[in-house]
Amino acid sequence: MVVIMQNNATKADLDAVLARVAEHNLRGSVTVGESQNIVGIIGTPITVALQESLESMSGVREVIRISRPYKLATREFHPLDTIVDVSGIKVGGGSAVVMAGPCAVESETQIMNTAIAVKKAGAHMLRGGAFKPRSSPYSFRGMGEEALKLMAKARTETGLPIVTEVMTPTDVALVAEYADLLQIGARNMQNYQLLEEVGRSQRPVLLKRGLSATFEEWMLSAEYIMNQGNHNIILCERGIRTFETATRNTLDLNAVALAKKRTHLPIIVDPSHGTGKWYLVQPLALAGLAAGADGLMIEVHPDPDKATSDGPQSLTLEHFAELMPKVNALAGILH
Amino acid sequence: MVVIMQNNATKADLDAVLARVAEHNLRGSVTVGESQNIVGIIGTPITVALQESLESMSGVREVIRISRPYKLATREFHPLDTIVDVSGIKVGGGSAVVMAGPCAVESETQIMNTAIAVKKAGAHMLRGGAFKPRSSPYSFRGMGEEALKLMAKARTETGLPIVTEVMTPTDVALVAEYADLLQIGARNMQNYQLLEEVGRSQRPVLLKRGLSATFEEWMLSAEYIMNQGNHNIILCERGIRTFETATRNTLDLNAVALAKKRTHLPIIVDPSHGTGKWYLVQPLALAGLAAGADGLMIEVHPDPDKATSDGPQSLTLEHFAELMPKVNALAGILH
Amino acid sequence: MVVIMQNNATKADLDAVLARVAEHNLRGSVTVGESQNIVGIIGTPITVALQESLESMSGVREVIRISRPYKLATREFHPLDTIVDVSGIKVGGGSAVVMAGPCAVESETQIMNTAIAVKKAGAHMLRGGAFKPRSSPYSFRGMGEEALKLMAKARTETGLPIVTEVMTPTDVALVAEYADLLQIGARNMQNYQLLEEVGRSQRPVLLKRGLSATFEEWMLSAEYIMNQGNHNIILCERGIRTFETATRNTLDLNAVALAKKRTHLPIIVDPSHGTGKWYLVQPLALAGLAAGADGLMIEVHPDPDKATSDGPQSLTLEHFAELMPKVNALAGILH
Amino acid sequence: MVVIMQNNATKADLDAVLARVAEHNLRGSVTVGESQNIVGIIGTPITVALQESLESMSGVREVIRISRPYKLATREFHPLDTIVDVSGIKVGGGSAVVMAGPCAVESETQIMNTAIAVKKAGAHMLRGGAFKPRSSPYSFRGMGEEALKLMAKARTETGLPIVTEVMTPTDVALVAEYADLLQIGARNMQNYQLLEEVGRSQRPVLLKRGLSATFEEWMLSAEYIMNQGNHNIILCERGIRTFETATRNTLDLNAVALAKKRTHLPIIVDPSHGTGKWYLVQPLALAGLAAGADGLMIEVHPDPDKATSDGPQSLTLEHFAELMPKVNALAGILH
Repeated sequence: MVVIMQNNATKADLDAVLARVAEHNLRGSVTVGESQNIVGIIGTPITVALQESLESMSGVREVIRISRPYKLATREFHPLDTIVDVSGIKVGGGSAVVMAGPCAVESETQIMNTAIAVKKAGAHMLRGGAFKPRSSPYSFRGMGEEALKLMAKARTETGLPIVTEVMTPTDVALVAEYADLLQIGARNMQNYQLLEEVGRSQRPVLLKRGLSATFEEWMLSAEYIMNQGNHNIILCERGIRTFETATRNTLDLNAVALAKKRTHLPIIVDPSHGTGKWYLVQPLALAGLAAGADGLMIEVHPDPDKATSDGPQSLTLEHFAELMPKVNALAGILH
Repeated sequence: MVVIMQNNATKADLDAVLARVAEHNLRGSVTVGESQNIVGIIGTPITVALQESLESMSGVREVIRISRPYKLATREFHPLDTIVDVSGIKVGGGSAVVMAGPCAVESETQIMNTAIAVKKAGAHMLRGGAFKPRSSPYSFRGMGEEALKLMAKARTETGLPIVTEVMTPTDVALVAEYADLLQIGARNMQNYQLLEEVGRSQRPVLLKRGLSATFEEWMLSAEYIMNQGNHNIILCERGIRTFETATRNTLDLNAVALAKKRTHLPIIVDPSHGTGKWYLVQPLALAGLAAGADGLMIEVHPDPDKATSDGPQSLTLEHFAELMPKVNALAGILH
Repeated sequence: MVVIMQNNATKADLDAVLARVAEHNLRGSVTVGESQNIVGIIGTPITVALQESLESMSGVREVIRISRPYKLATREFHPLDTIVDVSGIKVGGGSAVVMAGPCAVESETQIMNTAIAVKKAGAHMLRGGAFKPRSSPYSFRGMGEEALKLMAKARTETGLPIVTEVMTPTDVALVAEYADLLQIGARNMQNYQLLEEVGRSQRPVLLKRGLSATFEEWMLSAEYIMNQGNHNIILCERGIRTFETATRNTLDLNAVALAKKRTHLPIIVDPSHGTGKWYLVQPLALAGLAAGADGLMIEVHPDPDKATSDGPQSLTLEHFAELMPKVNALAGILH
Repeated sequence: MVVIMQNNATKADLDAVLARVAEHNLRGSVTVGESQNIVGIIGTPITVALQESLESMSGVREVIRISRPYKLATREFHPLDTIVDVSGIKVGGGSAVVMAGPCAVESETQIMNTAIAVKKAGAHMLRGGAFKPRSSPYSFRGMGEEALKLMAKARTETGLPIVTEVMTPTDVALVAEYADLLQIGARNMQNYQLLEEVGRSQRPVLLKRGLSATFEEWMLSAEYIMNQGNHNIILCERGIRTFETATRNTLDLNAVALAKKRTHLPIIVDPSHGTGKWYLVQPLALAGLAAGADGLMIEVHPDPDKATSDGPQSLTLEHFAELMPKVNALAGILH
């Protein structure tokens, strides 16, 4: 941590900063500049609490953190790629795992037909929503446990592990009974009680990036889960909110490549939410893999024009079947 | 709702759209254009489900909602200003209510001294965090129920009603035992289980805008609460996330003026979070009132440089005492 | 400037950094940390070129600039408020100067009637577009020099100095013949040839903030003008581009208060462009002044529904006349 | 165009709207809704001027444009891919053209060595800045015509066509004397005089997207050029400005895939500016091609740590040589 003093800071200000640093059993090294002094802080641990405390002190212009505020998630902490095992499917280290299925489970026929079709086309996992976060209280919010049962049935039929969202801490136990992979949705990326609850469960977690979360905040949310002992986390980039309205969100593939550099956790891409338009799903799915993603999450619906949600961004079974050979061809040359 | 057909939509596409509209017991009126047809949909209710269903149909280019997706919160539904009564303090209709206090309750001395000082300076309510959402799992996260007890004690001493945040559905009953006004923080604006739980409680709710929530999404979150029967909602603009990093957030005062036009719910402004810098709090507090806000929420700390959180944006007791006469002078000429 | 070395930087990397610093006749002071070294750079001038050069060196993680990259515009350089004299109208130091008029000059009748009406209501300057930047090549782009002549006539009639936009370096001489204040529009905030050309002219300049310009970039654009010898600059906040679409732009009043802290240049607010809706102009005009602005720029049109551009955000002559007493009452208590 | 009337619009308001439409020799078709009326406008041309005029009329809530505001650039207008011929290099229709070179030309040795190396590695064109837009007036701003001469020399030596930026209308003739492809930089995407001037030149144009330009605004800027008769335009996505600061910009690959759908113009991707970090260039270059781009623009410098600008985002000659086989392998399976 580096403390930049103000131009007009007094000797007393500087001494107070050094004293505060000393109270934390750390040492401050002063660089005397022509217009400002700089205090480098040496020792460990350098806490967030110290940073916040220094920021408000008289004569302090700015406190610059040098070490990243997350630890367990950094590649420095764990240099090798983490491979998350989801009921036998390995995610990470350059895998090209495809999770496919409808936004929401709507009926037994719908989920079974989809599961069989995506399995046949080469998908590795089945996605489907049982509890759906919806901006409007008047929208369809999912079939709940009934949907979980139907997904479990589809798993029995196809062998595909299932991934589904859990929205609130008290539902974690229930959803974990059925799901192979617990999804934390974008709106809940900073729902800390929920993060801690899935952190205490034994299930792998798919952590979607929040709509306006910085890369660092996303890593800190992973840290919340890891801090409870669960290190089986798969990150999912699903588009951020920007000024652009031509697409539903802006898929941030910079973040995918950056993740490969900064964290050991695997990362997948969701081009369905990331673009909001079915005809952009294929190019962005391929782009996601080319940027380094370890897999994809794709919305597929047997009849998108009758979907209860996200129809415009869902692939038909036919389009999904056309996508898979391209995914495989690309994966073949990337690794 | 208006359905814009694609240039190359077929007669069959158009008929299918009209049939889908008819299934919902509504009527479609076709305007035949030179390059496209437009279908106006007539009747009520025009649901979100119908919109989503139409958006995915063959030959449909775009579905434009005309009526707003929220109802109970609209000024059309309730033309007069709602006045929310928080234990005797009336918020709305041009009030200039000031809620002040520390980001987090840290000790009895701290909260009592602050309460007494802000009461003396003219504040109407006491704010203070007991449960704190923090980006990092390693930051101070509040004293919990102990803090609630200290705030209740400060209320007894000063008569100031108290406002404090509740972060998870299972805490609502506990927090409501102590708080006069339940705060939903920015990160939880779309935590729907939490919104519904406070919707079922009898306490007034302070609903902060999410960091990247559109005005419409914010109103829909209010709608979630109102839909459970609780109409005592105070909105709070606290800054949005933009590209600008010179300030912590960008306080969006356009939204305050817009709220006065579109909703009957009262709205207050939080310039402490909205700017992140204590020396910007006074000008933005005044600007918020001038834009039409019904009140302010201001972070005040007896010793900001020792605050456990948000020190850089907290006013000292002295600065707060200097602000209040300006607030009152401004309120005097605005109404 | 502070150079943060990488965890795994070698002794040779560090030595190379120190040598590079020495080449610039500066001195580097090393703080040896537990995981990283930090090099504080001492001496002047610390150039952008040095920063860029250091950023790419082996073993360097980050280079943090401490001093601001602009100089002439800083309050440290010029502690007192600059007062810009626009043909007798003083802008700055807490003035509440109002510039009013149509988006575009459309006819003699229109500009003369508007000028007379806004003068009568208490405006201090007349705005009007002769050369209009338009997103579409098919939109009305202004009457050019003919409009300048009509504005000059309106000035003769009313005594109001005139402000109008100049869009390209080769037009500066022509526009400066007529205008009292040269406006640089938001799209041209980083048109450096244009900035330098107005910097060489003797006219005061109104520098609008770019749609997505940071505060620092805006100050650097002012610096371009000042660097050519013209220090008569008035800043104008006119809304930034964010994710929010409920208003045309997001008026950033944080930036207004921040400007008062960081620069000596006067600043005004344009709530017409900042909101895009005439019914939000009044509350945001007042909010702008309360945030510390030295004036306002307001679009006024005698018949907004026949305006060739920006009709939805223009006040009628009547609405403008109603606004002015509120502006004056507010100005009365602010200073 | 569809006009949505307000709930409380009067019969007179509606009649006025219909009259205004009729003045433009168009026909309005009214759909009578339960709470609002909707007027569909039929005929051509439906101008921006009419839209703006209607938006301000009494009783009008909203005017929704259905046809896109740009024409010449749309795929409807020109269904086949445009192939732009840059001195023999064909760009478009699935080409994988690579333009490589330094941010700025700094010396004969630097540009010649780079040209020879990138040619050898397989690049198709040479980039290099002669006139550099810089945020600060104190940064290096390019060698001007001298740099153009050096690039021409490098072209003679290697046969690579050259692309370089032109910043102001009066420089177009000079730059066009040397350059095979005229680059319009991001800051100048809405410098309309410049767009029109390159529109009048005979040279192909590389049009970079503005930092905060919507897709539609970008197409309108292309329209400005095409409207002057020059249809040889290559679009270049180079990252947009968002809230994320972990990378310099956010490369928007959604826009690349969308461009393939909406326009016939070729599009390339600049991962150097798009990410700002050299170690992210390779993954994003590949991702850009996978998203559908017709080529890449890559910053390459023989000694990035001594570059006068953009060193941190430049590849070394070695890294560039490693990238090209991956580009070619990917291109091989994409088409």
